[in-house]
Amino acid sequence: MKLHWSPRSPFVRKVAILLLETGLDAQVERVRSVAAIAVPNPALMRDNPLSQIPALVLDDGQVLYDSPVICEYLDGLHGGAGFFPPAGAARWTALRRQALADGMLAILLLWRQERMKDAGRRLPEWLAAFATKIDACLARLEDEAAALARDGFDIGHVSVGCMLSYLDYRFPDLDWRAAHPALAGWHAGFAQRPSVLATVPDDAQA
Amino acid sequence: MKLHWSPRSPFVRKVAILLLETGLDAQVERVRSVAAIAVPNPALMRDNPLSQIPALVLDDGQVLYDSPVICEYLDGLHGGAGFFPPAGAARWTALRRQALADGMLAILLLWRQERMKDAGRRLPEWLAAFATKIDACLARLEDEAAALARDGFDIGHVSVGCMLSYLDYRFPDLDWRAAHPALAGWHAGFAQRPSVLATVPDDAQA
Repeated sequence: MKLHWSPRSPFVRKVAILLLETGLDAQVERVRSVAAIAVPNPALMRDNPLSQIPALVLDDGQVLYDSPVICEYLDGLHGGAGFFPPAGAARWTALRRQALADGMLAILLLWRQERMKDAGRRLPEWLAAFATKIDACLARLEDEAAALARDGFDIGHVSVGCMLSYLDYRFPDLDWRAAHPALAGWHAGFAQRPSVLATVPDDAQA
Repeated sequence: MKLHWSPRSPFVRKVAILLLETGLDAQVERVRSVAAIAVPNPALMRDNPLSQIPALVLDDGQVLYDSPVICEYLDGLHGGAGFFPPAGAARWTALRRQALADGMLAILLLWRQERMKDAGRRLPEWLAAFATKIDACLARLEDEAAALARDGFDIGHVSVGCMLSYLDYRFPDLDWRAAHPALAGWHAGFAQRPSVLATVPDDAQA
């Protein structure tokens, strides 16, 4: 299998963590691919016409994306504890948490783009809306932190953890821990997992 | 169940089509909810802090989002033919097609936002990048149109159909049919399904 990859994408990090947690890491060849909202990448688009990462090329040539699809596919390739619970309440909780964290990441990526624009092109109402939504999502996760800690470690946990680590990486000014102590406590444990330590974003890499 | 809903959202339309196709439509109470990128909706955010639709409130109070999660949940509630194939090649094809169509819709929503900005705030390189990516995705779907027609009707078909109908609704100037005759042929059949005819975007509704 071939994975279009970047050391800084939070969506790629979900896949990278799953590969390490499931022992599948050595089966994947990595290709460094740059995905940027304003710069289509023709080499990447031959596999994923959306020009987004992660994208996983299977040995039969089929290409899978986006990160929830890749993660669920990989979860079917190993014999250990599953990251996608079978149908039932646990599955919907895990998938809803993944959708919440991935949805927050989509907002955060747009927010970062907006911050990087020249001041004259920035939309103050967009910046305010992003902040309001992320605040509300963090408050919801704070309410859910005890349940997160109780529920083991599935794709919901991987997604929420990667999203919080992305806040640390790209939005340290938000200081998300200050108002969310229970969530910060859960994340402290997440951050110590070997799979998480091995996938810290690396600005030194190309 | 309660569905946060709009008559114009292409992601809501996926859910609305699934409800009709599976006979579950009468079990859902609809709440008209406005989701806009720059205007957080506090009433909606009590159920989905991302302020996005669709969001489905279950009878036990749990809330599901986004559209892939809601559609898969609903698909488990009926006894007819499934829209989410079980694990195996058909599942990954269906989920990859859903991710392609949903990813295109995410680009199209941003593209539409960019078009609606004052000229001085528009980013020409973003507009060009959106066009390049959507062209590449449509070309990929054109190559896949014969397979789409052969593979029956699953969540991949629902998603691709809703995305193409959204192009008709919001981007008629792209004239996507001109360069994609096989895809246009497939879509002509999609557009005649009763569930699709019953969910045509309605500008007259509030």
